[in-house]
Amino acid sequence: MRAAVMYGAGDVRVEDVPDPTLLEPTDAILRVRRACICGSDLWGYRAMPAAEDGREMGHEAIGVVEDVGPEVTKIKRGDLVVLPFAYCDGSCVLCEEGLDSSCLHGGFFGRFKGGGAQGEGLRVPFADATLFVIPAATDESLIPSLLSLSDVMGTGHYAALSAGVAPGKTVAVIGDGAVGLCAVIAAKRLGAEQIIILGHHQDRTDLARRLGATDVVAARGEEAVEEVRRLAGDLGPHCVLECVGHTDSITTAIEIVRRGGAIGRAGIPQAQEIPDRQATFWKNITLAGGPTPIHTCIPELLPDILEGRIEPGLVFDRQLGLEQTPDGYRAMNEREALKVIVQP
Amino acid sequence: MRAAVMYGAGDVRVEDVPDPTLLEPTDAILRVRRACICGSDLWGYRAMPAAEDGREMGHEAIGVVEDVGPEVTKIKRGDLVVLPFAYCDGSCVLCEEGLDSSCLHGGFFGRFKGGGAQGEGLRVPFADATLFVIPAATDESLIPSLLSLSDVMGTGHYAALSAGVAPGKTVAVIGDGAVGLCAVIAAKRLGAEQIIILGHHQDRTDLARRLGATDVVAARGEEAVEEVRRLAGDLGPHCVLECVGHTDSITTAIEIVRRGGAIGRAGIPQAQEIPDRQATFWKNITLAGGPTPIHTCIPELLPDILEGRIEPGLVFDRQLGLEQTPDGYRAMNEREALKVIVQP
Repeated sequence: MRAAVMYGAGDVRVEDVPDPTLLEPTDAILRVRRACICGSDLWGYRAMPAAEDGREMGHEAIGVVEDVGPEVTKIKRGDLVVLPFAYCDGSCVLCEEGLDSSCLHGGFFGRFKGGGAQGEGLRVPFADATLFVIPAATDESLIPSLLSLSDVMGTGHYAALSAGVAPGKTVAVIGDGAVGLCAVIAAKRLGAEQIIILGHHQDRTDLARRLGATDVVAARGEEAVEEVRRLAGDLGPHCVLECVGHTDSITTAIEIVRRGGAIGRAGIPQAQEIPDRQATFWKNITLAGGPTPIHTCIPELLPDILEGRIEPGLVFDRQLGLEQTPDGYRAMNEREALKVIVQP
Repeated sequence: MRAAVMYGAGDVRVEDVPDPTLLEPTDAILRVRRACICGSDLWGYRAMPAAEDGREMGHEAIGVVEDVGPEVTKIKRGDLVVLPFAYCDGSCVLCEEGLDSSCLHGGFFGRFKGGGAQGEGLRVPFADATLFVIPAATDESLIPSLLSLSDVMGTGHYAALSAGVAPGKTVAVIGDGAVGLCAVIAAKRLGAEQIIILGHHQDRTDLARRLGATDVVAARGEEAVEEVRRLAGDLGPHCVLECVGHTDSITTAIEIVRRGGAIGRAGIPQAQEIPDRQATFWKNITLAGGPTPIHTCIPELLPDILEGRIEPGLVFDRQLGLEQTPDGYRAMNEREALKVIVQP
């Protein structure tokens, strides 16, 4: 089959790879209908050392189940499903505690041979616990929003939960990428009173307003901090959703968050340390979040998509054929596209 | 009146200072019956640059109200009261949110002239909101435990709340100082199933066992991490109460805490950064805590002391007269004493 393989920074190729096969009795094989490129894929696209043995990319997909192993009992051939970015056994102690992204036997798609979603198909471990069936009659127009459940909508939602977003809270979202925009949707959905997005791309912050942001801060650094205080009051917002991962954005989060407030981390950290431990202590800030327990988030969000209450699919602004995947990476890396759908 | 004044590292003197007076109509004057020396006082004792103008020390006391300003309505002359380590107005938005330690008009005792508790008396701002009356007939034997409410018992309790201690949780407490020991009491009180204390002083860890610790880890560094895993299972404890403040102890906390677990910070941070941002993210750790909102903690803990269910006064192992306060600092700094009561 054809699949996108990354060989190093800036080097993504679509090529022939072995067809995925059932290796374990709990596996399923998924035929991909739509996949997409993630902001986190770009970290590799910018920095991966050249490798002879490439990495099959992609961890977000909507697809149809093509085959199942003998121990798969719930998922059936022909099911239309959401593929979450991680697989899990659904039965270990961490899954039972609701932290399926740390499943003792789990892992991430796009990290093993035959397990990349940016291709015609992939192998899905623990299919019964991992996949979410969506009604076969689902309107085609909902597919992008359902695809966002694979990662970005769940991740924005988890950032909001981690930061304690609730009715009446003031919220700042740092970052206007797909996760930041989904965090805006999540904050609105959870009842936030004020949602300030910090971002520099007007097309994206315009979309943020459409999705529920009440205010936009386009400034950077100290100027951004002052602007947030002007908007949210001197004490700052109760909840900050950090959707970038750079030290600068964590620093801004610590500066703007209200005393006693919370920072929900969605951005993959790009540095080793958390700055300003003094401020986090003296301001009594809670720092929370990490890889989204996506399997606990999807059931909460899925009905809202199927019933049209939220439309996170709006974060996709381009659709390419699978063969054009490398151009999708380029476009996202150059910020020409916000988030790209790949259609095999 | 006589009071303990710190002039620099290792230099605490008991000397004559002006009597405290009512400056604001909401003030009270407290005559101190018992004060004590705090682990946090030792940071100054070790590092304060020499100063001509000394600092009146102390932020923990039980005392009798000697005078009140015209706008004080609840607190009356003659009341026996607990002095929390901080004062607050009880009415600002942060007090209403339960974060009285960040009160917009509040502050810390031992940080302003006439406001040190290690003396014969002190001025108490916002007396109605700040002080807690205890029954005049309270048995003398309860005084040490009530005195612990000024800071250490509340601080241990808040660390436990910050780390989400609840029935059935496994808990590790890092540090066998007075706050660590009170954190053990708090964890037991909140229903923890297993309480592991990490500490190097056998007399203190013996006391920890008496107070509710189920296990003791005397090792340091990597050896301590392995020992905790052996005791709590490979995943580690759900909750870690960090009661030291050094980077080493935060590092240990991050290493031992369970994925998806929480670290409650009680120790005043002694470095600028939080180490291992990668691990805090990938392990989905919540970091929480800061200066204890002591006014919200005392009402919850006071009945348990008055009714004998907890006995945090056991952390005091020495009582000195006010004139001997410098020797109390020395003894605590040299770990000859755990926590010292000062009696004017």
